[in-house]
Amino acid sequence: MTNDPVRASADFIEQFMVDVFCGLGVPEEDAKVCAEVLICADKLGIDSHGINRCKPIYYDRIKSGILNPVTHFEIVRDSKATAVVDGHNGMGHVVAKRCMQMAIEKAREHGVGCVVARNSTHFGIAGYYALMAAEAGMIGQISTNARPSIAPTFGVENMLGTNPLTFAMPSDEKFPFMIDCATSVCQRGKIELYERMGKDTPAGLVIDRSGKTRTDTSRILADLKSGKAALVPLGGLGDETGGHKGYGYATTVELLSSALQNGNSMKQLSGVKEGKPTPIELGHFFMAIDVQAFIDLEKFKGNVGHVLRELRVSAKAPGRDRIYTAGEKEGIALEERSKNGIPLPGAIVADMKAMRDELGLSQYKVFPWEQR
Amino acid sequence: MTNDPVRASADFIEQFMVDVFCGLGVPEEDAKVCAEVLICADKLGIDSHGINRCKPIYYDRIKSGILNPVTHFEIVRDSKATAVVDGHNGMGHVVAKRCMQMAIEKAREHGVGCVVARNSTHFGIAGYYALMAAEAGMIGQISTNARPSIAPTFGVENMLGTNPLTFAMPSDEKFPFMIDCATSVCQRGKIELYERMGKDTPAGLVIDRSGKTRTDTSRILADLKSGKAALVPLGGLGDETGGHKGYGYATTVELLSSALQNGNSMKQLSGVKEGKPTPIELGHFFMAIDVQAFIDLEKFKGNVGHVLRELRVSAKAPGRDRIYTAGEKEGIALEERSKNGIPLPGAIVADMKAMRDELGLSQYKVFPWEQR
Repeated sequence: MTNDPVRASADFIEQFMVDVFCGLGVPEEDAKVCAEVLICADKLGIDSHGINRCKPIYYDRIKSGILNPVTHFEIVRDSKATAVVDGHNGMGHVVAKRCMQMAIEKAREHGVGCVVARNSTHFGIAGYYALMAAEAGMIGQISTNARPSIAPTFGVENMLGTNPLTFAMPSDEKFPFMIDCATSVCQRGKIELYERMGKDTPAGLVIDRSGKTRTDTSRILADLKSGKAALVPLGGLGDETGGHKGYGYATTVELLSSALQNGNSMKQLSGVKEGKPTPIELGHFFMAIDVQAFIDLEKFKGNVGHVLRELRVSAKAPGRDRIYTAGEKEGIALEERSKNGIPLPGAIVADMKAMRDELGLSQYKVFPWEQR
Repeated sequence: MTNDPVRASADFIEQFMVDVFCGLGVPEEDAKVCAEVLICADKLGIDSHGINRCKPIYYDRIKSGILNPVTHFEIVRDSKATAVVDGHNGMGHVVAKRCMQMAIEKAREHGVGCVVARNSTHFGIAGYYALMAAEAGMIGQISTNARPSIAPTFGVENMLGTNPLTFAMPSDEKFPFMIDCATSVCQRGKIELYERMGKDTPAGLVIDRSGKTRTDTSRILADLKSGKAALVPLGGLGDETGGHKGYGYATTVELLSSALQNGNSMKQLSGVKEGKPTPIELGHFFMAIDVQAFIDLEKFKGNVGHVLRELRVSAKAPGRDRIYTAGEKEGIALEERSKNGIPLPGAIVADMKAMRDELGLSQYKVFPWEQR
């Protein structure tokens, strides 16, 4: 059992992150939003976008001065069902949550609400905001652009972000329907997982400048960073297995996220200018569709649940005893982790100690898992 | 050159289809809509959804009494930015075009418009309706469900339709951005193409009940029809290459298309009941987003065009001299076919003759390509 990660309750980790963000100069109310979005990923088992990102993304960027801890949320344009917001390089979670709240309010009034943000920053999981809609009895559709990493079909250059196209809908089950995923075959986080497991990366996930698919996990991670390698769009290399579709959806997300708000896109989001780190000012797209403008909400939830249940009971492939529907694995993780806590691998614990020590958060002198 | 298909002008084929639909009892105004949507596919090079579908889908269904030639378009519910429509098993093109017009009008008024249809039928290419939005200076997002053909990840049963998730946006280029594709790796039409070419189907596109991928093209086509085989979701078999993502998007489309309008889904759309053909009453989802509610339209078009041009000039894979963006190949086909006409393979010409003779369309006694 010595290699098992320690575990801590979601509440504890969330409060720790609130204190970290406050220590960095994020106002308390905003710090709570940032922590809430990050811990939501951990609760749902989306380990690539939770506490593990606290230091390398937000902490380090605020420290290096390329991310504003204080968010100036400016509504640039506001009409009936639509709005454009400027986040002025503040905390992406804070910008995004307020945008989604606006979209939900507009949908309550008009049936649909659509808000786009410019000069925002990394907002955590898109799913958090889609779930806000589902909890409000609405369909949520969210997109954001991101640092360039996907190569176009027949190309080899990292051009498009992992650009999630995310949907959530309320259901009559324990957890809403939710699909929250990158429009590449996989994200960097999955390759980092292969590294931790000491495994080669499967063919077809990463392409390098020679046009060949790469499997050497450690070198892939370095080459993705330097731009010598790129992620393959959902559907795979070339167009025979539909790679042009994933590429088309990644482009759709790039356009939804940038063109409506007249903002940055693709290489402008690389975070480096003349060899120095620069702000990564992202664009987001938030849509809420009020179910009750179309149909009784309970009826809708039943309809959604019915489709999901039919899918699950359909004929399994030999050797497979279970078919999942989107959002189900997240719902299972939520249940398990609310009982057993969130696993914290050694690298994350080390980051937590570093942040505690640097910020002088003396209330965390002894972490709960260190107590005997 | 003897095996080259004959060609005819789009205008000629369109008028022929108008006359066919009128001959079947479709009112002239509606017949024009049906023909316009179908010829749009032919003009754009989407040969799977144009004149080739006229007979096996619409003609045969009207003849067999499972599709109403006269469309009763009923607005069931209409509020600010939203509406629910019932198509009463009429012509899908007619239902869909009016729904999209409503969505566009609502978007002009509120910034966004969202209309769903129930008891509609096969509406041709989703792209036609997305392009209506683009032509109106809007973003179009369209979905429809369809006869069950995609197997869930880890499943082998045909459950979900090819369920397109379609977007179009205006650009400053000759043709709008448009992605109009199934959420499976490929559609049946592509496998029919492999058959015409006498080629095996590549592995990973089709799965059968044993869980194995199939390559025997002719038997695949029979087994897809009988439900012994199913299409693989975009991303491929299993979840390692992202198949669960395509499956998740196919489910999203199924839900958007059915749950909001309280309609049929999945197996209910198989078109067969107790061995007899029955109506296939589909659901559609139409969204229009008015660009001008967010940004000056010309500015938006320039932003879209800029992203597309950057993608095209990015580094090519060795041996590839061109990167396409979504909608570009359709734009190229449009130019070429407006000069040279639409190719009509022998099977389509035979269908045209059969329809002409059965309906007594004597004005087409000699087709233009038969004149010397």
